[in-house]
Amino acid sequence: MPDNLALARLDLAIANRIVSVEGIIDAFGHVSMRHPSRPDRYLISRSRSPELVEAADILEYTLDSEPVKPLPKGIRGYGELVIHGEIYKARPDVNAVAHHHGMAFLPFCNSGEELVPLYHMGAQIGPKVPFWDSRDEFGDTNLLVLKPEEGRSLARALGRHWLVLMRRHGATVAARNLTELVFRTIYSYRNAELQLTTRTLGHPLSPLTPGEQRLAWERNLEPRPQARAWEYWSIRLRKAGQYPAGPKTRAKPAARRRAAKTRTARGKRR
Amino acid sequence: MPDNLALARLDLAIANRIVSVEGIIDAFGHVSMRHPSRPDRYLISRSRSPELVEAADILEYTLDSEPVKPLPKGIRGYGELVIHGEIYKARPDVNAVAHHHGMAFLPFCNSGEELVPLYHMGAQIGPKVPFWDSRDEFGDTNLLVLKPEEGRSLARALGRHWLVLMRRHGATVAARNLTELVFRTIYSYRNAELQLTTRTLGHPLSPLTPGEQRLAWERNLEPRPQARAWEYWSIRLRKAGQYPAGPKTRAKPAARRRAAKTRTARGKRR
Amino acid sequence: MPDNLALARLDLAIANRIVSVEGIIDAFGHVSMRHPSRPDRYLISRSRSPELVEAADILEYTLDSEPVKPLPKGIRGYGELVIHGEIYKARPDVNAVAHHHGMAFLPFCNSGEELVPLYHMGAQIGPKVPFWDSRDEFGDTNLLVLKPEEGRSLARALGRHWLVLMRRHGATVAARNLTELVFRTIYSYRNAELQLTTRTLGHPLSPLTPGEQRLAWERNLEPRPQARAWEYWSIRLRKAGQYPAGPKTRAKPAARRRAAKTRTARGKRR
Amino acid sequence: MPDNLALARLDLAIANRIVSVEGIIDAFGHVSMRHPSRPDRYLISRSRSPELVEAADILEYTLDSEPVKPLPKGIRGYGELVIHGEIYKARPDVNAVAHHHGMAFLPFCNSGEELVPLYHMGAQIGPKVPFWDSRDEFGDTNLLVLKPEEGRSLARALGRHWLVLMRRHGATVAARNLTELVFRTIYSYRNAELQLTTRTLGHPLSPLTPGEQRLAWERNLEPRPQARAWEYWSIRLRKAGQYPAGPKTRAKPAARRRAAKTRTARGKRR
Repeated sequence: MPDNLALARLDLAIANRIVSVEGIIDAFGHVSMRHPSRPDRYLISRSRSPELVEAADILEYTLDSEPVKPLPKGIRGYGELVIHGEIYKARPDVNAVAHHHGMAFLPFCNSGEELVPLYHMGAQIGPKVPFWDSRDEFGDTNLLVLKPEEGRSLARALGRHWLVLMRRHGATVAARNLTELVFRTIYSYRNAELQLTTRTLGHPLSPLTPGEQRLAWERNLEPRPQARAWEYWSIRLRKAGQYPAGPKTRAKPAARRRAAKTRTARGKRR
Repeated sequence: MPDNLALARLDLAIANRIVSVEGIIDAFGHVSMRHPSRPDRYLISRSRSPELVEAADILEYTLDSEPVKPLPKGIRGYGELVIHGEIYKARPDVNAVAHHHGMAFLPFCNSGEELVPLYHMGAQIGPKVPFWDSRDEFGDTNLLVLKPEEGRSLARALGRHWLVLMRRHGATVAARNLTELVFRTIYSYRNAELQLTTRTLGHPLSPLTPGEQRLAWERNLEPRPQARAWEYWSIRLRKAGQYPAGPKTRAKPAARRRAAKTRTARGKRR
Repeated sequence: MPDNLALARLDLAIANRIVSVEGIIDAFGHVSMRHPSRPDRYLISRSRSPELVEAADILEYTLDSEPVKPLPKGIRGYGELVIHGEIYKARPDVNAVAHHHGMAFLPFCNSGEELVPLYHMGAQIGPKVPFWDSRDEFGDTNLLVLKPEEGRSLARALGRHWLVLMRRHGATVAARNLTELVFRTIYSYRNAELQLTTRTLGHPLSPLTPGEQRLAWERNLEPRPQARAWEYWSIRLRKAGQYPAGPKTRAKPAARRRAAKTRTARGKRR
Repeated sequence: MPDNLALARLDLAIANRIVSVEGIIDAFGHVSMRHPSRPDRYLISRSRSPELVEAADILEYTLDSEPVKPLPKGIRGYGELVIHGEIYKARPDVNAVAHHHGMAFLPFCNSGEELVPLYHMGAQIGPKVPFWDSRDEFGDTNLLVLKPEEGRSLARALGRHWLVLMRRHGATVAARNLTELVFRTIYSYRNAELQLTTRTLGHPLSPLTPGEQRLAWERNLEPRPQARAWEYWSIRLRKAGQYPAGPKTRAKPAARRRAAKTRTARGKRR
């Protein structure tokens, strides 16, 4: 299905740029998705900042994080590919992954303070946010997740959750599809910002109850709020002059809408 | 009066976009106004982010939050319409309502710390800002205000005030007209930002006296400051390339000015 | 000297816009200068937000804050003109005044915490920053400075200083000329931001010694740093597409440069 | 090598603008590099704000901070040149220097709180960040580093480190080449922002171990992350419409790439 793959690459470029323009990813960090028709592969940009990614930059990798085709001369892949590959291996329900060092997350990554859901959109952090510390298994490193065993260790820490904080490093977010990934990356970040600000008031935090967290989480993932948020972020991207160049099929709105439906449906089926 | 209605829809699109571009509403939240000639109806966009709303997106609802005409195929309304409908029912003096999750309000919504007026523009929070907690009457929910009884409960909590904080959710602002709504939404937000910052200094807060609050509130609602602020925000919107597309009558500045007068006068008469 | 007056009006529009675009003044606040050749008059915009002021909006007032010519139909002046008029009366060495409600100043206006100079640019707050509280002499008001006696009271509080904080309201900045006014408005604001941030660390503040404050103040007001900062802010204004429309004389760079020299020299003579 | 010098001037203008547009340098501050073929000289702009610097503004100085050619009429150099000259003299391994008053650094400069590396990118502050206080040797001054002995004193405080905090003033950053300078200026700043935010949570900080700091530092300086970050910041500069005008050689991408390689290689050799 070449059309689907071309649209997936464009969508992935859009997702890369949204989380950058909305202020979460800077020069470093990366966003991937599982291949739309080959679940044993994933798609991710060549090594460049997510804000700059074009559809043409998207490469295919096996779940062992080996490139499916040899990379063209002069092209390099990201160093931390195993974050993505090992999570896709361990979690068949995950179809999209983002790794970032967002400045509102890092105080939690550094201090070890637990993230808790403080408003209904913050329910997207999930019922629990585990921590991973490279020091526990690997001692002094450059903090990056470079070796397969480091990736597997991180995937184990993520477990069946959707967000894992990495001590002195950053965060990794997982989702059933690309739309949910962008949604969860942004709203987990807003909740972190909120927790930072609320803490300055000095009162005890009032987190959502487990029941509220679950109900709000489910509501947020319904098609209407998902579509509304995606429209909002992608139009903002376009207005900011940051929309990626795309395949010719973009010119056929009907095909595009069908593909978008597929994208949402794919997530829903799982 | 088709012209008045067309202008009202354009003004409502402008108001939606101002509170978004000024940083208070993101993908979610909504802004409505009472129908200019049918007080038993209100106007509000179809379900989309306020920053994107066009005059053509504005739909008419009864105060029971039923669409006056069946929605076109593929068009959905907002989920939380009853916030608007139930407040318009309970408060004949209210002609415009905004609901948002602004990040500077949420720490108060979470912690329950009372908002107090800290400078003359902050007088726009009103003499008192009540709280509403969905948990009190409805237990664990997804936090949204979806059912008529939830909307009525929120309207009761608002009472005769102009702003109500919703625990672990956001805020709802009421006003006599659209200009005042934008004004109050923005300046109540600035006061919340100020309270957050002032609290970090660790001194006791020095709120306005009740007399100062009342006198500053009245002054702020006079035609001159209202017109000055609306001019400021709407020109900023235009300069940011975010002005909505509008009806042809926009091309007649004289008619536009008359309508603006009507808009202010309408607020004043009540 | 009609040319000088035309240039003064353009410069004043630029100054109004710089302090807005740099984030200090929003819809409200105002910036004035003494008339370039009639020290018994001052120039200030008609009532509109400083970010929008054009040279054509600048009106002339006597020091009693009476318009020199009747205002055109439909044009209104600012409400708080006496802030400017009474300071120009009381301080012949002051030739430019700004009044604002900048969000980094307001925590000090509310709490009464003293502003102290924390870095060399912060020396521009002056050796001491007095407070004025409308409540002391006038009891409950709408906080605005509307009556001549209120303006005189504020001018007395300013005394021989260059910045006065107004409790629960904002700040008024004075300077020898327009360039210095913009400079002092911006760098006193940066010092307030710095004091807010430094305070969160919980250490005692390390202010400049009186000698350091005086030496840094004098250095900052030398022609080179003044010209460098004015070039920076005015080019930023132009790049942001916010430069005011001006008189035709702007097209003559040589004349413009001479006028700029006059402007600086004028300040220096005092 | 006129081409190399022309490219160096363009690169230096780009570096000046990047650190400004990324929010670290405002009207004041300056960025220099050692002459590409004459290590006894350095390049720095005439006195103007770094955000405005063009390649044509770059002047040559001896390490005694004397201009190699008399400055053109009306052109002035920066006041604090000795910061650059004295560091180049004392540190043959340093080929680029930035001096700034970034608002996230100043709370540390004021309070004397030690900067510590809190995430892998923050490793770029180096193993230790020394302080310099002009008061220690020179008593009350205007805080600026104007005299050769003041520059030498600062260079001694920097010692063999790469960043020195200047009490009540700002910071000076050193690097082996221009790319590293921009990288270190930006990521040391992000680490300062992070330390400020983390401190508000009230937990003990969890800095990198010395081993982690060293390993992350080395990794960050490898060609791939250095090239990726430079691409990111320079494309952002271009998209923001802030790219400097440059020499004609910019039109030859191949030559440009070769020069970039030289630039990186130069740093690597040391």
